[in-house]
Amino acid sequence: MKKLINKPGDEVGEMIEGMVLAYPNIVRRIPGWNTLVRADAPTPGKVSLVTGGGSGHEPAHGGFVGRGMVTAACAGEVFTSPSVGQISAAIKGADSGLGTLLIIKNYSGDLMNFGAASEMTDTEGGKIDSVVVNDDVAISDPERRRGIAGTVFVHKCAGAKAEMNASLPEVKAVALKVIRNVRSMGCALTPCIVPSVGKPTFELGPDEMEFGIGIHGERGTRRDHVRSADEVAAVLTNACADDLGLKAGEEAAVMVQGYGATPSMERFILYRAVNKVLQERGIRIDVSWVGEFMTSLEMAGASVSLLRLDSELKSLLAAPCETIAMKQC
Amino acid sequence: MKKLINKPGDEVGEMIEGMVLAYPNIVRRIPGWNTLVRADAPTPGKVSLVTGGGSGHEPAHGGFVGRGMVTAACAGEVFTSPSVGQISAAIKGADSGLGTLLIIKNYSGDLMNFGAASEMTDTEGGKIDSVVVNDDVAISDPERRRGIAGTVFVHKCAGAKAEMNASLPEVKAVALKVIRNVRSMGCALTPCIVPSVGKPTFELGPDEMEFGIGIHGERGTRRDHVRSADEVAAVLTNACADDLGLKAGEEAAVMVQGYGATPSMERFILYRAVNKVLQERGIRIDVSWVGEFMTSLEMAGASVSLLRLDSELKSLLAAPCETIAMKQC
Repeated sequence: MKKLINKPGDEVGEMIEGMVLAYPNIVRRIPGWNTLVRADAPTPGKVSLVTGGGSGHEPAHGGFVGRGMVTAACAGEVFTSPSVGQISAAIKGADSGLGTLLIIKNYSGDLMNFGAASEMTDTEGGKIDSVVVNDDVAISDPERRRGIAGTVFVHKCAGAKAEMNASLPEVKAVALKVIRNVRSMGCALTPCIVPSVGKPTFELGPDEMEFGIGIHGERGTRRDHVRSADEVAAVLTNACADDLGLKAGEEAAVMVQGYGATPSMERFILYRAVNKVLQERGIRIDVSWVGEFMTSLEMAGASVSLLRLDSELKSLLAAPCETIAMKQC
Repeated sequence: MKKLINKPGDEVGEMIEGMVLAYPNIVRRIPGWNTLVRADAPTPGKVSLVTGGGSGHEPAHGGFVGRGMVTAACAGEVFTSPSVGQISAAIKGADSGLGTLLIIKNYSGDLMNFGAASEMTDTEGGKIDSVVVNDDVAISDPERRRGIAGTVFVHKCAGAKAEMNASLPEVKAVALKVIRNVRSMGCALTPCIVPSVGKPTFELGPDEMEFGIGIHGERGTRRDHVRSADEVAAVLTNACADDLGLKAGEEAAVMVQGYGATPSMERFILYRAVNKVLQERGIRIDVSWVGEFMTSLEMAGASVSLLRLDSELKSLLAAPCETIAMKQC
């Protein structure tokens, strides 16, 4: 295992410490926890958005903490849900008295721990509500669909709505609208190595790749030989667009993101092909995000997310934000 | 070779096409060339900054084209200098009649081709001048030092100065000040694979790493066994600070950047250690950049850059910019 780390097991705390040291004007740490909150929290007049999950998905989730996106993000151990106590401390640390929306990805551990924290946390009169993201079309049953990169569109749109001093029901309505209209699918060229485990999460031959991976270094739903960027783009983009029922003339936001070890050059080569597939389908692309948003340690691979847009979501996506990983003026 | 590409040899053109399709409000392509210019070029009243080099260093260089950074960036084939004709077309495409500063990294191919383009290009009365970046302290002879990640500090500061409608001599003076005051050093945990070659640039054992690498997938100046993030940070940071003669009480900007396959988590773990080394030396850190700025395809590894600051450079670093890879409000 070759990684720029110190002792396995220390990686999450040291990463959180590094983020605060590098960007103290954007984030601070909730004492005693691997949780980042906005440097200016609590923010009077604003509903707070609390999210998180296991670590290893950086920049998600702490990289999206800040003005116009999420208020607090809990970082569990690598690929492990944050604890109930940690989530409860995040809710309290972010609370401005106007209510909290928990943005949860559809994994049993996250559902259980965010749910329990929601029940056991007393806030200053603010209600706690939640939404569950399940954008991964690689799983056919919507109840079992995982939350993956499309979650960052929820952070952006709901965060922009909260920044405008909207009420908790209004912020939740935006989050639910994004969830109904976003789909994602990913592929991997390599597995990754969890530091405390020290060996690859699965084996993959030199000419093989996986389609339909999640974000925890697991195998996908289908193994294939290595395909060209154009072929990969067609598989991922059509799966999302078909499931979403996206029709010619509709507008969409597109996210093409690498899983950690896929360099910028390949992300743009893939984006070019995704763009062409959508153009052929007559979809109008309003906004594109190409980068790293929800990774899986140093896995090589990428995912495509499509979000159907209306005028409200377009303006929320375009709204200003200032976080470590995303800035809009 | 596992990469999200199509035909080897097509990767640069397809990447450039993807960048323009994704961010048409920021960049456009100079017809017939793998060269990006600001979408709004030529920009009246502003000196133009033209840079570039081989591809494989993304987001450098095209990711830094835009308001407040560089005006145009030429992308050569992977790890290969752009041609004289390409650079000449970039100078003309960016020219607003007020002069051009070429920002060249210290490699013989770049020096030759940018130099020839400078001599053979007729602009509308604007002078063409140039600076050469040589921030890599892994090479002891300053004449032979390569230009690596510290170049992006030159793009930012000189770009901010040009955006303020400064004259060509004023913009050049800022670029030279950054070059005098910036030092970098990198390390690698893995080699990388040039698409048209198809095999790793060098061999490295499972417990080995290289210190003093450049940005072209080459071996470093010293091989070692794999060190902890804290040890790596100490080697890279002290080498830069010592060479720069950075004294307690001085202020610096810090860049910690991954070479392509080093995930965000490891970059922040490394940054934490760099920050501690600098604190122990009594250096005051004014601004930190942690991310990917000047990569080497999908190489795993990282570099550290230090820039000594004065009040002018501080305000130029803080000035607004809007490019694909860097936005400041």
